[in-house]
Amino acid sequence: MENVTVKYVDKKPRLKNPIFIEGLPGIGNVGKLAVEHLIEVTRATKFAELYSKDFPPQVFINPDGTVKLVNNEFYYRKARKKNQRDLVLLTGDYQGLSSQGQYDLVESILDVIEDLGVKEMLTLGGYGLGHEIREPKVLFATTDKHLVKTVKKYGAVFKKNEPGGGIIGASGLLLGLGKNRGFEGVCFMGETPGYLVDPKSAKAVLKIVTKITNIDIDFSRLELKAKEIEQIARQLSEMEMMTKEKTDELRYIG
Amino acid sequence: MENVTVKYVDKKPRLKNPIFIEGLPGIGNVGKLAVEHLIEVTRATKFAELYSKDFPPQVFINPDGTVKLVNNEFYYRKARKKNQRDLVLLTGDYQGLSSQGQYDLVESILDVIEDLGVKEMLTLGGYGLGHEIREPKVLFATTDKHLVKTVKKYGAVFKKNEPGGGIIGASGLLLGLGKNRGFEGVCFMGETPGYLVDPKSAKAVLKIVTKITNIDIDFSRLELKAKEIEQIARQLSEMEMMTKEKTDELRYIG
Amino acid sequence: MENVTVKYVDKKPRLKNPIFIEGLPGIGNVGKLAVEHLIEVTRATKFAELYSKDFPPQVFINPDGTVKLVNNEFYYRKARKKNQRDLVLLTGDYQGLSSQGQYDLVESILDVIEDLGVKEMLTLGGYGLGHEIREPKVLFATTDKHLVKTVKKYGAVFKKNEPGGGIIGASGLLLGLGKNRGFEGVCFMGETPGYLVDPKSAKAVLKIVTKITNIDIDFSRLELKAKEIEQIARQLSEMEMMTKEKTDELRYIG
Amino acid sequence: MENVTVKYVDKKPRLKNPIFIEGLPGIGNVGKLAVEHLIEVTRATKFAELYSKDFPPQVFINPDGTVKLVNNEFYYRKARKKNQRDLVLLTGDYQGLSSQGQYDLVESILDVIEDLGVKEMLTLGGYGLGHEIREPKVLFATTDKHLVKTVKKYGAVFKKNEPGGGIIGASGLLLGLGKNRGFEGVCFMGETPGYLVDPKSAKAVLKIVTKITNIDIDFSRLELKAKEIEQIARQLSEMEMMTKEKTDELRYIG
Repeated sequence: MENVTVKYVDKKPRLKNPIFIEGLPGIGNVGKLAVEHLIEVTRATKFAELYSKDFPPQVFINPDGTVKLVNNEFYYRKARKKNQRDLVLLTGDYQGLSSQGQYDLVESILDVIEDLGVKEMLTLGGYGLGHEIREPKVLFATTDKHLVKTVKKYGAVFKKNEPGGGIIGASGLLLGLGKNRGFEGVCFMGETPGYLVDPKSAKAVLKIVTKITNIDIDFSRLELKAKEIEQIARQLSEMEMMTKEKTDELRYIG
Repeated sequence: MENVTVKYVDKKPRLKNPIFIEGLPGIGNVGKLAVEHLIEVTRATKFAELYSKDFPPQVFINPDGTVKLVNNEFYYRKARKKNQRDLVLLTGDYQGLSSQGQYDLVESILDVIEDLGVKEMLTLGGYGLGHEIREPKVLFATTDKHLVKTVKKYGAVFKKNEPGGGIIGASGLLLGLGKNRGFEGVCFMGETPGYLVDPKSAKAVLKIVTKITNIDIDFSRLELKAKEIEQIARQLSEMEMMTKEKTDELRYIG
Repeated sequence: MENVTVKYVDKKPRLKNPIFIEGLPGIGNVGKLAVEHLIEVTRATKFAELYSKDFPPQVFINPDGTVKLVNNEFYYRKARKKNQRDLVLLTGDYQGLSSQGQYDLVESILDVIEDLGVKEMLTLGGYGLGHEIREPKVLFATTDKHLVKTVKKYGAVFKKNEPGGGIIGASGLLLGLGKNRGFEGVCFMGETPGYLVDPKSAKAVLKIVTKITNIDIDFSRLELKAKEIEQIARQLSEMEMMTKEKTDELRYIG
Repeated sequence: MENVTVKYVDKKPRLKNPIFIEGLPGIGNVGKLAVEHLIEVTRATKFAELYSKDFPPQVFINPDGTVKLVNNEFYYRKARKKNQRDLVLLTGDYQGLSSQGQYDLVESILDVIEDLGVKEMLTLGGYGLGHEIREPKVLFATTDKHLVKTVKKYGAVFKKNEPGGGIIGASGLLLGLGKNRGFEGVCFMGETPGYLVDPKSAKAVLKIVTKITNIDIDFSRLELKAKEIEQIARQLSEMEMMTKEKTDELRYIG
């Protein structure tokens, strides 16, 4: 087995001018949540699995008692309306653990989508702020200057020098290495506190993606998850305050 | 030397429908203790050693003053009754240190057992609970759904979403990578506090293995070890309590 | 993609007896600041980019919203006067993350400059003192003994056993591996406190480089940066003192 | 450049039944000090340098201002008396940084000495006790049982299960991997506190080596170094005591 292996579990799909959308785990799991939701609501079809020696040596246990080796998975979804495009979707359990592992992973992903005729990509992730936010904005970066104006129209925001440290991980690397191979693409980053998984930020990112791809999807499941997470966040914050009060009380007595 | 090398120290055994049983170091050393006991009581024959650059650069010193390069070791044991099967057994000093090392190690193990005609495997390990337990249960996961029912009959337990993080290390990877190569298998995980080596948990796992393989073995040595460990655990816990009392006393005086 | 790839973005320059000058990130960013300034004021031309899987999996975001995969960049600048020489310049975002990555990176750099006919090199870096200094001296080390006298004439200083731990990173490795391939070279290390980027130290290093290469350059931009950094350093030190006073005061009251 | 490269700096020596002696950096630098001393007093000739990408990316600075890429170095010394044997000696700046780097390094060393006709080796190191000792004993381990008796005659000591964790690093790996390639050898480990470099322990180890090789050498330089280190150790211990007294005093006053 090479460092990365791609295993087709269905016949390779024949696609027309497909667009590639990536969402792997990362801060707030924004990209992963977004693409997983998209796969679910568009009933996309899995056609390939990607394995890497740079993923942890780990299997998950399925609800039926069988094991699943950690991987990344490719799905496709054919256009159903005139103004839509065929989609290739990628999500997964992990990104590469090491720097080299990340480069190898991304080159392998680019091999697969190049082979499918992909020329454009949207990569999805989070932008960690470290504090709570009401309405997450969606930042972006592109491979090519002419895309900037287009993307702004869809409601994404560009702040000079943000994210300051650039983009670390597959979402950025897909654009960086992809650009060298002739791909065009945009990375969308949903603002997120970054403490917990963030379905609200995933929804914000996905809203822009659906505008670009002319796919009308139901967000209710993502909204439900968002409410659950908000409740957990509220409970955590209350527990923290109570602990603090308790400590203050004790100090007073002492 | 490749990353992993297999060195035959005896002629390759000719086996009939052999089943493979793995027990490498891990939490509570449950798998290793189980397979080592099985090797001892069945008087299995060592036929190959496996070396990896991803094991520590280390030799152990034998009681006779000679060195032993750290490795993994293969044994076989031929069926002696009609209802038994030939066994291939693996134990060793280490698992791979890195993620890649683990994948390479497991692929090499699969190469060896495939070559011997193995189609089924049992991988043994521990499931760390972080607290004491009276009677360790044995959890499991399988490569194939049809094995689940069979395994339950032998007394192994399936708890949904347990272990929550899946299985990390060779025991899981052997199933995960093996499944892709057509092997069927079950991973048995004995519950263990995880603080010390756990012969009691190893015995629980081994009991199920002997039922599956129709091998009737003597557990007395493992039971003796279990008693020794229980005594050590009791002493440690008493020392801890005494330290605590002492501290409380001091606080009182102060 | 190999571990390191070189991508020519302009046609390979034809150079006459070129000298190579390297300045990658390091302590006080002395080397990087020096070579970046040299590129800017001599209006050198970028002709190649170097990518490595041992750089972080990261893109930066340009002011126009496009991404830039982290890399190292080669520039050249042809001689404009009789007493000058053609220059090959290297700077970049990172050095290799691992030991092997550094060796691979440096061998690739040597491949490129060997191919351009380079026989001599100047590598630039900082020498961290851990305390403030008025006038940074420039230490040096060479590939060949006969260079020592020449270099001293230009004002560089040799202190026995300094730096005590030798030179770690690309600046040293270029000399070490280069020497084995027949290159001659000098490493210049500007003394620096090492807390912040240090344009003053970069200027000190660059002054010697310009003497060697007979290039007359404007330092005003580097001097301006140096003043800015000095002000930041002063503010940081005042803040520290205030914190200390405050603490002393509190102690007094308590 | 491969991961490890061997560079002959002199013509390959023609040796008669040579014995190989290794001393690389390690605990107390016992092995390195011993072999360096042996090289010096026997005026051995350097004939090869070994470079590895798994050494740090570092050059040292020679007293004349030139750089030296970190490496390992091979020396030889021809027998001068009838009862002596030709020697191949190895010392160096570093061992490999990673597990794989160590295995690659040792395999390369074995390649070199196999090519020179070496069949036997002595590997030298320290055994860290973590406390002061009057007279360091020399422990050992061998590739073959028949060597144990011979070695004991020379004054080396075997303690069952010591060192408990076996031998980590090149000294052990040379025996472990060498044994698989038909080499015979002994590892000598001088007891050492392990806090500082330990010439006294190096002398103890070397005394046994000289008995085996029938080489009569002058130890005065090593003894001088040992005295210097003892003085430093005494000063450090006094400083520690003074600090402690001071603290006690302050406590008393407070």
